[in-house]
Amino acid sequence: MTRALVLNGPNLGRLGSREPDVYGAASFDDLVTSVEKWCADLGLQGEVRQTDDESELVGWLHEAVDTRTHVVLNPAAFTHYSYAVRDAAAQVTSAGLVLVEVHLTNPYAREAFRHTSVVGAVATGTVAGFGFDSYRLALLAVAARV
Amino acid sequence: MTRALVLNGPNLGRLGSREPDVYGAASFDDLVTSVEKWCADLGLQGEVRQTDDESELVGWLHEAVDTRTHVVLNPAAFTHYSYAVRDAAAQVTSAGLVLVEVHLTNPYAREAFRHTSVVGAVATGTVAGFGFDSYRLALLAVAARV
Amino acid sequence: MTRALVLNGPNLGRLGSREPDVYGAASFDDLVTSVEKWCADLGLQGEVRQTDDESELVGWLHEAVDTRTHVVLNPAAFTHYSYAVRDAAAQVTSAGLVLVEVHLTNPYAREAFRHTSVVGAVATGTVAGFGFDSYRLALLAVAARV
Amino acid sequence: MTRALVLNGPNLGRLGSREPDVYGAASFDDLVTSVEKWCADLGLQGEVRQTDDESELVGWLHEAVDTRTHVVLNPAAFTHYSYAVRDAAAQVTSAGLVLVEVHLTNPYAREAFRHTSVVGAVATGTVAGFGFDSYRLALLAVAARV
Amino acid sequence: MTRALVLNGPNLGRLGSREPDVYGAASFDDLVTSVEKWCADLGLQGEVRQTDDESELVGWLHEAVDTRTHVVLNPAAFTHYSYAVRDAAAQVTSAGLVLVEVHLTNPYAREAFRHTSVVGAVATGTVAGFGFDSYRLALLAVAARV
Amino acid sequence: MTRALVLNGPNLGRLGSREPDVYGAASFDDLVTSVEKWCADLGLQGEVRQTDDESELVGWLHEAVDTRTHVVLNPAAFTHYSYAVRDAAAQVTSAGLVLVEVHLTNPYAREAFRHTSVVGAVATGTVAGFGFDSYRLALLAVAARV
Amino acid sequence: MTRALVLNGPNLGRLGSREPDVYGAASFDDLVTSVEKWCADLGLQGEVRQTDDESELVGWLHEAVDTRTHVVLNPAAFTHYSYAVRDAAAQVTSAGLVLVEVHLTNPYAREAFRHTSVVGAVATGTVAGFGFDSYRLALLAVAARV
Amino acid sequence: MTRALVLNGPNLGRLGSREPDVYGAASFDDLVTSVEKWCADLGLQGEVRQTDDESELVGWLHEAVDTRTHVVLNPAAFTHYSYAVRDAAAQVTSAGLVLVEVHLTNPYAREAFRHTSVVGAVATGTVAGFGFDSYRLALLAVAARV
Amino acid sequence: MTRALVLNGPNLGRLGSREPDVYGAASFDDLVTSVEKWCADLGLQGEVRQTDDESELVGWLHEAVDTRTHVVLNPAAFTHYSYAVRDAAAQVTSAGLVLVEVHLTNPYAREAFRHTSVVGAVATGTVAGFGFDSYRLALLAVAARV
Amino acid sequence: MTRALVLNGPNLGRLGSREPDVYGAASFDDLVTSVEKWCADLGLQGEVRQTDDESELVGWLHEAVDTRTHVVLNPAAFTHYSYAVRDAAAQVTSAGLVLVEVHLTNPYAREAFRHTSVVGAVATGTVAGFGFDSYRLALLAVAARV
Amino acid sequence: MTRALVLNGPNLGRLGSREPDVYGAASFDDLVTSVEKWCADLGLQGEVRQTDDESELVGWLHEAVDTRTHVVLNPAAFTHYSYAVRDAAAQVTSAGLVLVEVHLTNPYAREAFRHTSVVGAVATGTVAGFGFDSYRLALLAVAARV
Amino acid sequence: MTRALVLNGPNLGRLGSREPDVYGAASFDDLVTSVEKWCADLGLQGEVRQTDDESELVGWLHEAVDTRTHVVLNPAAFTHYSYAVRDAAAQVTSAGLVLVEVHLTNPYAREAFRHTSVVGAVATGTVAGFGFDSYRLALLAVAARV
Repeated sequence: MTRALVLNGPNLGRLGSREPDVYGAASFDDLVTSVEKWCADLGLQGEVRQTDDESELVGWLHEAVDTRTHVVLNPAAFTHYSYAVRDAAAQVTSAGLVLVEVHLTNPYAREAFRHTSVVGAVATGTVAGFGFDSYRLALLAVAARV
Repeated sequence: MTRALVLNGPNLGRLGSREPDVYGAASFDDLVTSVEKWCADLGLQGEVRQTDDESELVGWLHEAVDTRTHVVLNPAAFTHYSYAVRDAAAQVTSAGLVLVEVHLTNPYAREAFRHTSVVGAVATGTVAGFGFDSYRLALLAVAARV
Repeated sequence: MTRALVLNGPNLGRLGSREPDVYGAASFDDLVTSVEKWCADLGLQGEVRQTDDESELVGWLHEAVDTRTHVVLNPAAFTHYSYAVRDAAAQVTSAGLVLVEVHLTNPYAREAFRHTSVVGAVATGTVAGFGFDSYRLALLAVAARV
Repeated sequence: MTRALVLNGPNLGRLGSREPDVYGAASFDDLVTSVEKWCADLGLQGEVRQTDDESELVGWLHEAVDTRTHVVLNPAAFTHYSYAVRDAAAQVTSAGLVLVEVHLTNPYAREAFRHTSVVGAVATGTVAGFGFDSYRLALLAVAARV
Repeated sequence: MTRALVLNGPNLGRLGSREPDVYGAASFDDLVTSVEKWCADLGLQGEVRQTDDESELVGWLHEAVDTRTHVVLNPAAFTHYSYAVRDAAAQVTSAGLVLVEVHLTNPYAREAFRHTSVVGAVATGTVAGFGFDSYRLALLAVAARV
Repeated sequence: MTRALVLNGPNLGRLGSREPDVYGAASFDDLVTSVEKWCADLGLQGEVRQTDDESELVGWLHEAVDTRTHVVLNPAAFTHYSYAVRDAAAQVTSAGLVLVEVHLTNPYAREAFRHTSVVGAVATGTVAGFGFDSYRLALLAVAARV
Repeated sequence: MTRALVLNGPNLGRLGSREPDVYGAASFDDLVTSVEKWCADLGLQGEVRQTDDESELVGWLHEAVDTRTHVVLNPAAFTHYSYAVRDAAAQVTSAGLVLVEVHLTNPYAREAFRHTSVVGAVATGTVAGFGFDSYRLALLAVAARV
Repeated sequence: MTRALVLNGPNLGRLGSREPDVYGAASFDDLVTSVEKWCADLGLQGEVRQTDDESELVGWLHEAVDTRTHVVLNPAAFTHYSYAVRDAAAQVTSAGLVLVEVHLTNPYAREAFRHTSVVGAVATGTVAGFGFDSYRLALLAVAARV
Repeated sequence: MTRALVLNGPNLGRLGSREPDVYGAASFDDLVTSVEKWCADLGLQGEVRQTDDESELVGWLHEAVDTRTHVVLNPAAFTHYSYAVRDAAAQVTSAGLVLVEVHLTNPYAREAFRHTSVVGAVATGTVAGFGFDSYRLALLAVAARV
Repeated sequence: MTRALVLNGPNLGRLGSREPDVYGAASFDDLVTSVEKWCADLGLQGEVRQTDDESELVGWLHEAVDTRTHVVLNPAAFTHYSYAVRDAAAQVTSAGLVLVEVHLTNPYAREAFRHTSVVGAVATGTVAGFGFDSYRLALLAVAARV
Repeated sequence: MTRALVLNGPNLGRLGSREPDVYGAASFDDLVTSVEKWCADLGLQGEVRQTDDESELVGWLHEAVDTRTHVVLNPAAFTHYSYAVRDAAAQVTSAGLVLVEVHLTNPYAREAFRHTSVVGAVATGTVAGFGFDSYRLALLAVAARV
Repeated sequence: MTRALVLNGPNLGRLGSREPDVYGAASFDDLVTSVEKWCADLGLQGEVRQTDDESELVGWLHEAVDTRTHVVLNPAAFTHYSYAVRDAAAQVTSAGLVLVEVHLTNPYAREAFRHTSVVGAVATGTVAGFGFDSYRLALLAVAARV
């Protein structure tokens, strides 16, 4: 069975309470529930994780390489500066696995610093702007690729 | 029945013959066939068009507003400079319709000039990097939004 | 009788339906009516045209040179990138004719990309920010110059 | 009767003697005469002032707010750096009054530093490039707005 | 008794009437009253002044050096371009006196041009974002330093 | 009783031994003692923490939101690049709590990279340049705001 | 017989009447005559076209690929912004055909915006600055390459 | 007898007390005495003035034009931002008079903002870095030119 | 006996599996073995550590200061953005200890973002581009310095 | 008989051995032979020289002026920084002689630093990208101009 | 007797024939004659040299250090890029000798690349814009300093 | 026996007398002695050369290619602008030889212009900041590579 790690970066555990006008009222637990259901529907063995810790996120990306697991990655704020995450993500795609960068919102419609992704260049592809559905589409991309 | 215009910008009619190592061997007709099938599957009344003409693309976006049709837009090279397309696309989303920007390839993994989208800020969201599947995911986003 | 071409670039035909909070509720037809009346008042033989097509706009500027007709030009989105329009506009003023760049809104009060005009350097002058009245003032400038 | 202050920044009192090939041979007194006549024609109670002193110009803009007087402002060299003038001008328009930025010449056709206006973003609109007529058109804009 | 000059730059005399949504409803006289009371509480011999005139502000900074008086300085718009004020402020701190730069609002939360201070490098320190309380904190800093 | 978290970023635990010519000879324990005393004086229930770990700092900011506690934040080096800390800090102020950014030294008087704060835009205000007193002033600002 | 398309972008049809001090007095028809003669001399089956329409130019480049025809391209104003033309030109050279970028004048000796070519990177080579002779040299380069 | 105005900008009246390690211990009065003596030696009818007021400096430059007097100008901090002074200085040289920009210190050896002169482009020439002798050399240049 | 900490940043534990065409086939354990042998040869008491965690790396640098241990530091991705690591590294060299920045590859021969080091300015020196030998040379530099 | 100097800058004497995949296998002697033959064919009295020495190249350009000889110049690496060569080349064209800048390869298709020519602005024209044929075309341009 | 080397960079030997409208009709020999006379008048043992060779100029600056000779340096085009000349010039002034940078013309009134001097930061001072008199003033500065 | 050329750029012959606080008191002869000894120790047939002449340095790099000699290169000031040296150095490494860039000091700790190396991208690796030891380490790198 195809495995997929759905990895989430800093502050995403705060969904629901964090600026609901920007991110919506649904909580991170709601996101987990949705993603698990979508994985089941797609025949993926999915697991959702969240961390505010850059090194933990880097470690999970290493784990993905070692276990040959595809990745859906919402790097959140790390998108804009963490070359450590980038270097780890590069290992995933250079190992022939799929890594999809996702964003709940459309970065281009927000502050200027969100228009740049240091991770994007090493991702397979990107899905942004569709709220939770960004994850669903990313999982579909994973399922279609394998 | 929900309508969707799938609009394609310059040089995309050349798929198959155009730099196959970058864009793949499938032709634009193959893309049309795939998109029409996906629309049918999703219960969308889809129509695929392609033009190398900026004004024609602008006109199709106007038509989308007037007919209250959602849009999947691959602006191709226009992505990087056509404020005319941007201003037309802005009318689509400000009218409450969905407009998804799609790219076959991952712009961040190519030349620097492709890292900037003048259209992105007025799109609902973006899907990039999955080949033809970028369109399938975009249509799913449209279907999920309506 | 002094002739004046009042040329309008992409998306301006959408006035009235396009973002009314930015551009007002009056339609492009209303603009035509107003401009024609103002021309009559000023003794100008005016003609209002609109196109989303860069090459058509370029052609109209060529026509202005050949018929020795002054120009009021709202390049809309072309303002910010079309060096083709610029090179055509330069022929108008280098032929000793008047070319007034107009904008309905104040570009400096909008997005950063609207703060730059690639056309401005070859115009006789600019009127911006007064809605339809921008055209009236521009026509007055034409009338005063000839 | 509608009041209008026609305010002029540094070096404009030198018109006639200052670089006549750029600014023309007419003097500042000629400008005053013309503006006063145009005001009379338009039923405006106009007053023309000039100063080389940034603080005096700021004070006149304050006066305009307090006396609910519209403003035609040629900031001259202040256009390009005086955030003090900008902050004062912002009070005029945020009080619901009209403030038109005018320039005798076309800044885009001159040195690069003249292509930027720190005042423009808080003006109602701009008229540039028509010599003395820039003021006439600006006064018309004021008259039309009130 | 320790002396403190509380110097205010352009447009600050307009407090109360100037964009109350940004700067609050209290007037400059209210600020003077508050500052004088705080000075008395802190055992400082304070004096509050305001000017729209760059040279007057420069002169007051010279006076501070000559009378060995500490300074609380709100340079307002001068913050962003007046190297004359900067050079005068540098004399204050290089003479071993305290100079605190204050702002009513948080410049980082406003327009981009307000993110840069040409004065900051020669100030002892900065307090910004607390309305009138910015002055109170600055006076405390002065009192604590002497 | 009003609660305040006084949070300190990387390397601040080294105060006293770290470049004493820049940061002074007093240790971080001295800072804790001072801050606790100032809190007591102001009737604040204060707690001082320090971490070199970005995710721990992010977590503390989350805790502040959940416990409705105001924050005094010295992000130290994170000031200049941690959008994760910024996004967490934004939650504090968007929840209606006070967050004051503090710095011991004046960033504008140091290396160019210290002139930019990615956190500043979401803070209530800033106090910088007064050594330990920066914290005292920040606590006063908190006390005054509640 | 080797085929060559000699393609000309916007405003080049105006040669002779357009700024003769920059472009010379000879007309576009003169250019056609010269180019046809040079083609005959070189044993090339040449055809000269001109358009102000970006999409038409893109289409001609597609035609060149399909008919395995070499290209001499004067993109005129499109040189500086049309990524659509660039993407089409790239197909020509990646198909193993020759594409020579030509300019009548020396772009480096003109306005700064003319110093950048977005087409240059995908051309075989460039000839600029020799008036009509730029075309002759380009045709020689084509003839020499095949 | 040839006339020369020796004009000095903001903070130069503070010589002697202002940062003596940078500017030396001699006072502005010493400078006046030296300049007057040098003028006498050179047969120039010299006058030394200093102001912290931009508009006064602008006025003196106007006076120089009207009285056909050459100028030695130390714009001090105005060097780096005052386009008002620049526009006034331009009138001096465009009237055929000599205007020498002087600096006591070498701007290139100081802060980066001092490396740019907005006045330099309209001066006849520059002398910088020789303390009071910068003025002597400038007066020699004036004397030699007339 | 002279002590040396050989500290390695994020993703370096992946050597051998990580992009072997860039970093070679040898593993991190191989690196440890090599470094330990080189330390023994040089009479250094060396210890090799690796972490993906910025705060752990910062802590190790603090430990180096406290134990007066020299440092060989490969900051990996942190090189390009971690001012926290920089501020910690600065403590090492300002304490009179040696800190050598090492890189396995030549950053100048890779992506543009790798051309900048925020750590370099506070290092004693740099060795880059020699694979594992970069460490050997760095240890020699440490041994030579003490 | 018309004279032409064919001048070559640094490293061009290494043709054949220097990166043959970029520059081809033919040697500099081959180039000399080709150029001499082309000169003979064109009735030009040509001479080919090469130097790695900037001052020698500058001297040859002076010689060209003094002997009224046209120039074909491949500045090689000097293209990108030698203002000395530029100033010498400017003397050639300002003396009414032809100077053609040539490049073997297409600079726009190589590293970014090769996209800028400091010499280009003072050349008559440019030929780039055709290998040795770049020289042949340049000589034709010389022959056609005289 | 005080010694002075008057060193001239590339293309200055061409004075008289080089762009006389920019540099005047007098030749380099005329300059030598003038400088020698001025040196005699000032009691300086002067020597004038010119070279197009960067290394020769560097050597002369070394000679100045070794012979404790002051320098008047016109680096000509080297001004804008030769860090080798800069490093050599720095040795002159750091040895306590005077080095005056001179320019015949006013660099700020010419092309943008001439607005930057990489030598200026290590010079004692600068004289620019007075033709040959720039040298006379520079020699006076030398004489006054010693 | 493995050969190594140790090449030194401009001003390095001045070691000992040149800014001893930056470069130390040892002379260039001392450097030669040290390097020769280190070569002997490493079994390298080393030769040390120094030149202020760019073309001589270029020639030595050509010689290294032709004689298959490895290179230790201190480009000194050429590091920052000489693309001629870069192009020559590129031949060394593209020929499969080792070229190590060395610097006595740490460029990142000095002026901003020293932070960029135009040579670095074509070197095998870099050693910087260890004084003469930079050369010793570089020679070790050469010895280890062959």
